[in-house]
Amino acid sequence: MSARRRELAVALVATGDELVEGRHVDTNSAEIARELLAVGFEPRRFTVLGDDEDGLVHALLELAAGHGAIVITGGLGPTLDDVTRHAVARAAGVALARDEGVLAGLRERFARRGRPFAEANTRQALFPAGAEVLPNANGTAAGFAIPVAGALVVALPGPPREMRPMLAELVVPRLVARVADLPCVERRAFHLFGLPESAFADAAGAWMERGANPLVGVTASGGRLSVTLRAEAATRAAARELADARAAEVRARFASWIFSEDEPDLAAVLGRELIARGVSVTLAESCTGGLAAERLTRVPGISAVFGTGFVTYADEAKTRLLGVEPALLAAHGAVSAPVAAAMARGAARHCGARLAVAITGIAGPGGGSPEKPVGLVHFGVSVDGVVSTEERRFLDLGRDLVRDFAASTAFDLLRKALCGLAPAR
Amino acid sequence: MSARRRELAVALVATGDELVEGRHVDTNSAEIARELLAVGFEPRRFTVLGDDEDGLVHALLELAAGHGAIVITGGLGPTLDDVTRHAVARAAGVALARDEGVLAGLRERFARRGRPFAEANTRQALFPAGAEVLPNANGTAAGFAIPVAGALVVALPGPPREMRPMLAELVVPRLVARVADLPCVERRAFHLFGLPESAFADAAGAWMERGANPLVGVTASGGRLSVTLRAEAATRAAARELADARAAEVRARFASWIFSEDEPDLAAVLGRELIARGVSVTLAESCTGGLAAERLTRVPGISAVFGTGFVTYADEAKTRLLGVEPALLAAHGAVSAPVAAAMARGAARHCGARLAVAITGIAGPGGGSPEKPVGLVHFGVSVDGVVSTEERRFLDLGRDLVRDFAASTAFDLLRKALCGLAPAR
Repeated sequence: MSARRRELAVALVATGDELVEGRHVDTNSAEIARELLAVGFEPRRFTVLGDDEDGLVHALLELAAGHGAIVITGGLGPTLDDVTRHAVARAAGVALARDEGVLAGLRERFARRGRPFAEANTRQALFPAGAEVLPNANGTAAGFAIPVAGALVVALPGPPREMRPMLAELVVPRLVARVADLPCVERRAFHLFGLPESAFADAAGAWMERGANPLVGVTASGGRLSVTLRAEAATRAAARELADARAAEVRARFASWIFSEDEPDLAAVLGRELIARGVSVTLAESCTGGLAAERLTRVPGISAVFGTGFVTYADEAKTRLLGVEPALLAAHGAVSAPVAAAMARGAARHCGARLAVAITGIAGPGGGSPEKPVGLVHFGVSVDGVVSTEERRFLDLGRDLVRDFAASTAFDLLRKALCGLAPAR
Repeated sequence: MSARRRELAVALVATGDELVEGRHVDTNSAEIARELLAVGFEPRRFTVLGDDEDGLVHALLELAAGHGAIVITGGLGPTLDDVTRHAVARAAGVALARDEGVLAGLRERFARRGRPFAEANTRQALFPAGAEVLPNANGTAAGFAIPVAGALVVALPGPPREMRPMLAELVVPRLVARVADLPCVERRAFHLFGLPESAFADAAGAWMERGANPLVGVTASGGRLSVTLRAEAATRAAARELADARAAEVRARFASWIFSEDEPDLAAVLGRELIARGVSVTLAESCTGGLAAERLTRVPGISAVFGTGFVTYADEAKTRLLGVEPALLAAHGAVSAPVAAAMARGAARHCGARLAVAITGIAGPGGGSPEKPVGLVHFGVSVDGVVSTEERRFLDLGRDLVRDFAASTAFDLLRKALCGLAPAR
């Protein structure tokens, strides 16, 4: 391995018995990888270990040989199974030393909360001698950084809400400063809905080749595609030019599917747009059972435009709450375009919303038939009282995924309706 | 490391650029770890690598020295970036050989679906010479098993729905058969709601010690605790006796918090019990915005007892849909016990349900005050028309977590109400 290649290579390590026993999934490493990739580093390997001091010492020495930096999460707590500081000290060949400033801060923090300061807590003021201490604004576990066999080893606490700001504010700048001439990397992202991954790949053609620059990455999830461009060049300007040129081509080729270039959450994009334009909305849900309302109400401030949602799981509820005629239900069945239309109309009228979407479908596992298979979903959309319908046949990938697709499709229909809507009345 | 310790040690490897670049999180390794732990193996280390043949060869040889078995997921597809079979062959020091039976099966599978058989697909019929082929009933990527430097290396496809049945049916039995005298392990699980992890640890005392047998593991998530017991002994009977004795003590000590011994999902436990007893239920949600309805309607068959849910986000919706008096809202505010009670009463009456729960609270980020801080949630519970209220003050750990706690608390209140309910009328 060339010295240059090693310098940019990063290894991530996560520790904890709960990880290696499969009770928790390590999401920190993926998050750190994304952040480091974005500034030009190359995440090469993740390692998950239990609370195992010997194992961690061994892994660190092994990883130090091939990586310029190693970021460890976890194992910085006050109890005996928190072994990261001891393992790093051994790997670095130094003793542990108490940091009096950190100790005073811990005592003060406990005093402020009126909690007794147990002797065990002094463990959190121990650091490998010579390490740089990284303060933790959101918890008692300070992190640290110290070179081990030529690699910079950084230790961070495991809880994401403590780890995250430390990574952004303390770790990324230190790693970037360490590498003299980090390649200039520019990234662009696009979030698409409704285009299958294989159709994207066909339409993207040679852009997708592995050696291409910009390099294209695609991740599919519940009907959404996240497309990333990573352009690398010797200068910032050249990287930006490469990225911008390909980004313009992507926009031209995939305009009708792109719903955002910064926000991967379709509900958030829709919700913010509704709030910004002051357009009221309601939801009438059958097979999604509240999923669409739940997603939309995750958006802070949504109460300005969303006041009422209807979960009309039973036929009788569709009639009573939304005024769907029993005769219509009897003639077409609950999963049908006429019923979807009547649900949307009823919901919009009931609460006077400018936009309404209704979702009625067969999520499975049971309930399908040859004419109406599992995965069939009808949508009704009411825009200022004008109602249209859409039909989708999703793959039967299980109840949760059919519902996920259905809720996202409803949001996409609302987003498109909103694009064509006159300004607020 | 003793030969015995190595024999039981298992390493898990996941490959794919999307993993090491942080676009997907590896959940396979955690799932495999749980399954292998359950039958007496000791998962010691997870490794995540990109689509990097050299890196995988190196990692396999390194891991083979300390582990009796290595299970790899991913990299068995037909494209050039699927490198697992090549890497394992190199690590094992053998060539790749084509399996004519697998090739014929692939051709037949494509013909059956009317798709042309591309030459690239023959790659999926290549296996390290001497490997045992593991058929994949749910996809085109067959797995395989072959010894590498004394460790059994098993390769499985990455998609969980393909990997999972192969693990259970083909891999676990092979690994168990390989170890002459696997320690007898018995596991028990308990799922609790409403008890903080630290309170559990205090009450459990010496049971929690790291060397204890049974060993106790605790995982906390959204107010739920999952407690596992792992008892190990020389005979199956002795392990069972150890596990049963501690399980009886756990039941006695934590009875009022245990909601299940097999199902970790509180909504599923509640939903099945409602269905089994034929008790109808409705939900009136303000701050949770449909989350409770969404969770409950994940339970297959729930339509037998749940027909209507109300998402009354705005005050006006509480009045219009649930009949909450505007004067009550003005006097106490929407987040109050009287309004929670009125919401539950209105919801139950509206659809004639025996049970109703109402949720109204301050999920944040804004909207809190000294008297009504973010995290304050009022619940109303209607049982055959008799309404009671509960108040909870959750920690302000963010909007999503407050909503998660609130929905789970509502289910716990319903579960307890159901326990005290007379048989179906």
